[in-house]
Amino acid sequence: MKKVAVVMGSDSDLPVVEKALSVLDELSVPYAVHVYSAHRTPIEARGFALHAAENGFGVVICAAGMAAHLAGAIAANTVLPVIGIPVNSGSLGGMDALLSTVQMPSGIPVATVGIDGAKNAAYLAAEILAVGDEDLAARLLRSRASSAAQVLEKDRALNRKYEG
Amino acid sequence: MKKVAVVMGSDSDLPVVEKALSVLDELSVPYAVHVYSAHRTPIEARGFALHAAENGFGVVICAAGMAAHLAGAIAANTVLPVIGIPVNSGSLGGMDALLSTVQMPSGIPVATVGIDGAKNAAYLAAEILAVGDEDLAARLLRSRASSAAQVLEKDRALNRKYEG
Amino acid sequence: MKKVAVVMGSDSDLPVVEKALSVLDELSVPYAVHVYSAHRTPIEARGFALHAAENGFGVVICAAGMAAHLAGAIAANTVLPVIGIPVNSGSLGGMDALLSTVQMPSGIPVATVGIDGAKNAAYLAAEILAVGDEDLAARLLRSRASSAAQVLEKDRALNRKYEG
Amino acid sequence: MKKVAVVMGSDSDLPVVEKALSVLDELSVPYAVHVYSAHRTPIEARGFALHAAENGFGVVICAAGMAAHLAGAIAANTVLPVIGIPVNSGSLGGMDALLSTVQMPSGIPVATVGIDGAKNAAYLAAEILAVGDEDLAARLLRSRASSAAQVLEKDRALNRKYEG
Amino acid sequence: MKKVAVVMGSDSDLPVVEKALSVLDELSVPYAVHVYSAHRTPIEARGFALHAAENGFGVVICAAGMAAHLAGAIAANTVLPVIGIPVNSGSLGGMDALLSTVQMPSGIPVATVGIDGAKNAAYLAAEILAVGDEDLAARLLRSRASSAAQVLEKDRALNRKYEG
Amino acid sequence: MKKVAVVMGSDSDLPVVEKALSVLDELSVPYAVHVYSAHRTPIEARGFALHAAENGFGVVICAAGMAAHLAGAIAANTVLPVIGIPVNSGSLGGMDALLSTVQMPSGIPVATVGIDGAKNAAYLAAEILAVGDEDLAARLLRSRASSAAQVLEKDRALNRKYEG
Amino acid sequence: MKKVAVVMGSDSDLPVVEKALSVLDELSVPYAVHVYSAHRTPIEARGFALHAAENGFGVVICAAGMAAHLAGAIAANTVLPVIGIPVNSGSLGGMDALLSTVQMPSGIPVATVGIDGAKNAAYLAAEILAVGDEDLAARLLRSRASSAAQVLEKDRALNRKYEG
Amino acid sequence: MKKVAVVMGSDSDLPVVEKALSVLDELSVPYAVHVYSAHRTPIEARGFALHAAENGFGVVICAAGMAAHLAGAIAANTVLPVIGIPVNSGSLGGMDALLSTVQMPSGIPVATVGIDGAKNAAYLAAEILAVGDEDLAARLLRSRASSAAQVLEKDRALNRKYEG
Repeated sequence: MKKVAVVMGSDSDLPVVEKALSVLDELSVPYAVHVYSAHRTPIEARGFALHAAENGFGVVICAAGMAAHLAGAIAANTVLPVIGIPVNSGSLGGMDALLSTVQMPSGIPVATVGIDGAKNAAYLAAEILAVGDEDLAARLLRSRASSAAQVLEKDRALNRKYEG
Repeated sequence: MKKVAVVMGSDSDLPVVEKALSVLDELSVPYAVHVYSAHRTPIEARGFALHAAENGFGVVICAAGMAAHLAGAIAANTVLPVIGIPVNSGSLGGMDALLSTVQMPSGIPVATVGIDGAKNAAYLAAEILAVGDEDLAARLLRSRASSAAQVLEKDRALNRKYEG
Repeated sequence: MKKVAVVMGSDSDLPVVEKALSVLDELSVPYAVHVYSAHRTPIEARGFALHAAENGFGVVICAAGMAAHLAGAIAANTVLPVIGIPVNSGSLGGMDALLSTVQMPSGIPVATVGIDGAKNAAYLAAEILAVGDEDLAARLLRSRASSAAQVLEKDRALNRKYEG
Repeated sequence: MKKVAVVMGSDSDLPVVEKALSVLDELSVPYAVHVYSAHRTPIEARGFALHAAENGFGVVICAAGMAAHLAGAIAANTVLPVIGIPVNSGSLGGMDALLSTVQMPSGIPVATVGIDGAKNAAYLAAEILAVGDEDLAARLLRSRASSAAQVLEKDRALNRKYEG
Repeated sequence: MKKVAVVMGSDSDLPVVEKALSVLDELSVPYAVHVYSAHRTPIEARGFALHAAENGFGVVICAAGMAAHLAGAIAANTVLPVIGIPVNSGSLGGMDALLSTVQMPSGIPVATVGIDGAKNAAYLAAEILAVGDEDLAARLLRSRASSAAQVLEKDRALNRKYEG
Repeated sequence: MKKVAVVMGSDSDLPVVEKALSVLDELSVPYAVHVYSAHRTPIEARGFALHAAENGFGVVICAAGMAAHLAGAIAANTVLPVIGIPVNSGSLGGMDALLSTVQMPSGIPVATVGIDGAKNAAYLAAEILAVGDEDLAARLLRSRASSAAQVLEKDRALNRKYEG
Repeated sequence: MKKVAVVMGSDSDLPVVEKALSVLDELSVPYAVHVYSAHRTPIEARGFALHAAENGFGVVICAAGMAAHLAGAIAANTVLPVIGIPVNSGSLGGMDALLSTVQMPSGIPVATVGIDGAKNAAYLAAEILAVGDEDLAARLLRSRASSAAQVLEKDRALNRKYEG
Repeated sequence: MKKVAVVMGSDSDLPVVEKALSVLDELSVPYAVHVYSAHRTPIEARGFALHAAENGFGVVICAAGMAAHLAGAIAANTVLPVIGIPVNSGSLGGMDALLSTVQMPSGIPVATVGIDGAKNAAYLAAEILAVGDEDLAARLLRSRASSAAQVLEKDRALNRKYEG
């Protein structure tokens, strides 16, 4: 099974990124974790991206804040799908990271999830790998069903509580 | 080869969506086109999503403007990767569609591209299918190389023009 | 008397929603509470909406945050008036939820109140039911008068405090 | 049958407002049209609101741009449901009108629709009157069905066009 | 000497408003304080505005948050200069109050100061009264000189501290 | 009678500023017009401000776009009331000019009107001078009455047109 | 004399960039022009930056739109001062390019000028080179003086026109 | 060696500014610190700027919040490069300061860094001085290398931690 690479621009993004790792663990998707900065370690970031496919990765998740260039810098050097997590750091609520991640020029897409949306980055990575992996697709469907069941249980509880 | 479904919320989104179709044609990726509205035809939108995988689709691209719920409504009913194109309609420059598309709750990801970023939606769809298709990956790399060559040609032309 | 349905997208919205329930209690408007997610439990959300009118509901209040699709998803399946409360969650101050709730396509309106404006959602629901219920209209007028009286009392207190 | 009052803050809002009138005509909902400015004719605006219920109105639609106070000024003087249409005038894309209309203080709700969302204001007004009028509810359902049919027809046309 | 009226939309605005009162005290400008809500006590707000000039007021300061209509509602009923303080309440950092206060229609100006800018509202009120009052103008100039002196003292202190 | 100084940061602001001059003409308020740039002619801008009061001016109106510092630069050098018109130039709809004009530090207020709100700047200047000039106050009241009459005439026309 | 490198992300940015070239011509500052894309030609962009200093450049100006990474990508590979021009392309008025350019992580600064502020990029480049070049500093001062003279001439013209 | 002037608009900006001083210390770049307000001490601010070059300064860093005019006011009076730090104060996350600092009129550039980006202001100042100082350029390269090494160390640590 292909692996997911989870790259963050700074280790201060780890609390956000860890939520992605939990989801990948839950779905039994293998992954490796890296810290590369598009600006401080551009050579290593580029080197990683160039060889990601041959190193067994199928998807790359990138988390970065502010003028978040990491996902774009990785995407510029691979045709693997790259998922960008705009991290809320600084004072603009993550709007800077969102726009820096999503507004990419034609030809170099970044699959952007919500601000601090690390869980969804992991689910999306799994969905991408599941296109060619029916077992993983089945695990994703079970995860959805369990999440729906939780909502419905809360529905019953709250509905009863306010019933009278 | 799995197909890409390209769904738009209204046929007024077609001028944006056509740019995605051109890219898919160029990359020889098969696709089907649909018009479904999350709000006006919720049953059909849902029905399409539920059966998309068994109908041979590997990725779904959704384009919608304003309170753009289409990608989310499709994503809620399939574990195929869903790509959202926020369409710039109305008076807010597409910021409403961007936020409505990207800020999804945990568990139901939408891979969001830039506002009116139809070309990148198509490239991303191809990248996702190329995870399991080396020929398509090779076509994507050739497309990248050709795009780079065009930039470098323009560089030589402009560099010479202003050289003196 | 027709009931108000108060639906939230997640039980984490309850602290906001409870302010609506207090107002409905004060105005003696009957209600039922539900948790349905447009994305996690789309079938149940739709089923609820389709049968809301025949189940004795006159108005539906929906509270949701981020890419808040709940009110729109309910409105797509009923012609009862649907009131949307954009909930401030995440890092954008609720602007994402506001735009996702209010910028609906033509034909599927959502009566949107302010961010976290649960009290006003309840007052609006009561006003809607009061169109055909003179007693409720009278209760609303008394509530307004009492609120005005409170403002005027504060006016007298502050005016005197700074007078001399 | 109760009437809808359609009030605009300036006759320059008429091109937006006319779309609401067309929808009301289609749905056979009676209405009257007024121009009142919260700032230039505050007495008349207030007088209208105070007597709207006894004059046979069941809902009031208010359209205004910029620091759009009209809906709030009307809502302050009646317990009829007041629908606000934020009009896009000036240079901020209607964001000023949206916030001025929707962010009302507790106790005085305005049911806000999207920027320039005049059609939805009319549909919402009809939905409110339909709570006590089964015939109107039926007309609304027929309008929804016809709108869905149009989307599906476009779906078939576009699906075929790109099929082969 | 004419008085300044300081009106707030809710007594929860008092902590902001008190900064204006301190400045007026410092400049020996007489004032009265009121709580009127454009929406909850529209009659009293209007009555106050209509008679403000004959009651000896020369300027009115209005503080309100969210869809802040108070300054506009007062300005609609007097030709006295009305100063608006947009109060930061709710989740949008006061942007809603700023736009609701400043984007007034032609003919009904509101002299808007910064978000929570209560001190500047008081200084502006004093400047307006000082157009016809040379003593007050002199007090304003002395206040400016003292403020400049404080900055320069801090300059000397910090310059020395980092000198080496 | 004291004069109004109307200062613009660039002669490209003249189309906006001319609307202020028309209003001042209508109200028979004398004025002088200047072009000073806070950045290109800081000495002249400062010199003008320092001597504005002794040169017979009672109020200064300043119009500038983008990082609009003109009103603040004038206000820093006089205790006359300074009115700022944020001009919509560039690509941000005037939001840059609005924030640069209104968010002044304590002690140096700028009475800000809406984006491109030149008419209101003139009305506000007249209201300020009218605090000490009953004739001008009377002219302002007549102007208000005439504006109200126009609205009511449009009300009658539109009300009749749609009456049926 | 060291040269200025003017790099744009796409030749569609040329109309904006040409304004910078005119200013550099006026100030007799030598320059070379390049088209490099941070995403489409990352190797060449990096190669250029690594050797810019040894190739005789003293400053680099970078112009790019949307998720504008070019300036940051160049800055990551040189310690020459890098000036970023956020280009207004797409539908957000250049706010995306501004935030992507200016919100850089610590250690890799980009000297950002206003949206489409190509002239100021050139003036800033000249100011930087003028720190070690008194003749260039003198030319900059003369340019300032001439710009001031133009403003003052317009002042005299407009002042006279409206005098009486 | 030329010095860097670090000017803040208020001593409340010191906690932000101190981060710039640390970086300058690290890079052995001499500096002086000042507090000048564009609005409260305009004469001193201007006087400082006019004589900054002859007093041995090569670059000026200015930090200010809200309607941040300081950098522009300094830049208007010198042709030395002026770096602006928009400070996050007030309730808008520093967006007001960013726009007030960066959106300068043609001819008077301000080299703007990110919101609260004091470190980058210092690095940029050093880069500017390093254009004519090879030793400083070497120190900057060493600082970059050390920062890269830190990132790579964190990469190794995190990569190993999650390896299995």
